[in-house]
Amino acid sequence: MSAILLAMTGAGWDPAEWQARFLALAPRREVRIWPDRACNPAEVGYVCTWKPPPGLFAQFPHLKAIFSLGAGVDHLIGDPLLPAVPLVRVVDRDLTARMSEYVVLHVLLHHRRLRLYRAQQREKIWHEHAQPAASEVAVGILGLGVLGREAAELLARIGFRMAGFSRTEKSLAGIETFHGKNGLDAFLARTEILVCLLPHTPATEGILNLALLRKLKRDGALGGAYLINAGRGMLQVDADILAALEESSLAGASLDVFPTEPLPRESPLWNHPNVIITPHNAAVSDPRALARNVLTQIERFERGLPLEHVVDRTAGY
Amino acid sequence: MSAILLAMTGAGWDPAEWQARFLALAPRREVRIWPDRACNPAEVGYVCTWKPPPGLFAQFPHLKAIFSLGAGVDHLIGDPLLPAVPLVRVVDRDLTARMSEYVVLHVLLHHRRLRLYRAQQREKIWHEHAQPAASEVAVGILGLGVLGREAAELLARIGFRMAGFSRTEKSLAGIETFHGKNGLDAFLARTEILVCLLPHTPATEGILNLALLRKLKRDGALGGAYLINAGRGMLQVDADILAALEESSLAGASLDVFPTEPLPRESPLWNHPNVIITPHNAAVSDPRALARNVLTQIERFERGLPLEHVVDRTAGY
Repeated sequence: MSAILLAMTGAGWDPAEWQARFLALAPRREVRIWPDRACNPAEVGYVCTWKPPPGLFAQFPHLKAIFSLGAGVDHLIGDPLLPAVPLVRVVDRDLTARMSEYVVLHVLLHHRRLRLYRAQQREKIWHEHAQPAASEVAVGILGLGVLGREAAELLARIGFRMAGFSRTEKSLAGIETFHGKNGLDAFLARTEILVCLLPHTPATEGILNLALLRKLKRDGALGGAYLINAGRGMLQVDADILAALEESSLAGASLDVFPTEPLPRESPLWNHPNVIITPHNAAVSDPRALARNVLTQIERFERGLPLEHVVDRTAGY
Repeated sequence: MSAILLAMTGAGWDPAEWQARFLALAPRREVRIWPDRACNPAEVGYVCTWKPPPGLFAQFPHLKAIFSLGAGVDHLIGDPLLPAVPLVRVVDRDLTARMSEYVVLHVLLHHRRLRLYRAQQREKIWHEHAQPAASEVAVGILGLGVLGREAAELLARIGFRMAGFSRTEKSLAGIETFHGKNGLDAFLARTEILVCLLPHTPATEGILNLALLRKLKRDGALGGAYLINAGRGMLQVDADILAALEESSLAGASLDVFPTEPLPRESPLWNHPNVIITPHNAAVSDPRALARNVLTQIERFERGLPLEHVVDRTAGY
């Protein structure tokens, strides 16, 4: 039976907890934590990873598959030494549900003017503002993968006027869809709250820039445009978001990701009154849910069934 | 054709806007705003009201029905001079949807520790806390009327472990239900986030007191208990909520209603770090939606069909 190697770097990852979860579910499987001198590289069949050290995979002659434990694969796909084995994105109900929690919370928070009411509370002001219904407010999801589709459906259920944009044509019940270059401008022109759930690829890098933010609908029911980025930090140009807030192209933003993480202390985003910052925790990979998910895939694969959610390396996600 | 009289008092009500909405939909109907000396009391068939002056109704000999324009009828039912015509609660899709927006926002806000992350942002702290999934968190709805049922279904769709309590036995797909005196304790013992959507009756007055709050589950996935009151102010004992926060029976609260409104400036709730205050705007009656709703009911009634959502005066709601 091939061994599983856990190779994860960066804040918030505790490989020992992942190992414990794997062993609880598959006690007879060998599960190693990188680096481990006692580990025989020839026995490693699967690497479960987040931001692995460059060149790691070359030492495993019998590698069968690589599992990326977070929602993105941009941390892997840029590695020119990445071996030609299947690269599997984690698509897990738990991860999807957590992302939807985050998106619904932040859409409702801007929609219901929570920052304004919190500011009033500090001044002990009892004053009600005009409030459009969700059915009057246009929310747009940029990126209709698994995460984007689920968030769109949930927001539609709450009553928002939903639309979604994707690179390729997609169809979703009850949700207006746009695609391609021309579709993007029409999508932005009808969107008051923009939720970004795109993957990071060469084509999407820096897409959340001033030119794009200026195309959002500012004269809708909310009287301003809002950005929620829970996708990838490299999609966004921090200076452009600040400029858009400055010139009122944006009325507010919720940002979970940044080009540089942790967000540097000198960033003016930290103290901007219209920006809500969260520390890249919109959808955290929970070892309890994901270890089961990965093991199920490995067991399917070893019974000769195909792996699910294999990355298309040409598209980059 | 019987005239409609609009009799509304209190902050936030603009009878002229309601009149314009009624006339836009029914231009041939006489629509008067109380007080109006030119109005012939004998012609008034319907009164649409919020907190009417005491004894108002006695002067209309041909009154056919009274419409309460908000979600509650406690402002009417205590009046000993209330005539024996049908008293109709407004049950409107728009009002229900707005309440669900509020409830979902505030449940997610406590669940996702928004106050904690906002406090970290002020200190420029990038730090992630353990986050249970919604599926690990028990939310309970106190009051399973139209508003409570819709909120419960939506929160279940998001993934929370949902239960509801009502005076009489009710059954709801996918939601654990409790009723009666014994049911209440069991309901509270499994509930981490308590959402109160009860009507105000003699039986519910002051129900949100220290004894009840102490029965909530404090050792669940969230590590504390939370209260969201979007029902009626008279359900809650402000001093007991403060005491519960003080002794950590409650970890936080979102309060939209209060026994005295506006909340007096001297209330310590205003500045409590774990309390979120909104100015009774969880679900505001929108004249655009509700004027149509009331007119539809009047037209049905005049064609001989029964009125919907007539208040049971014995139950008090």
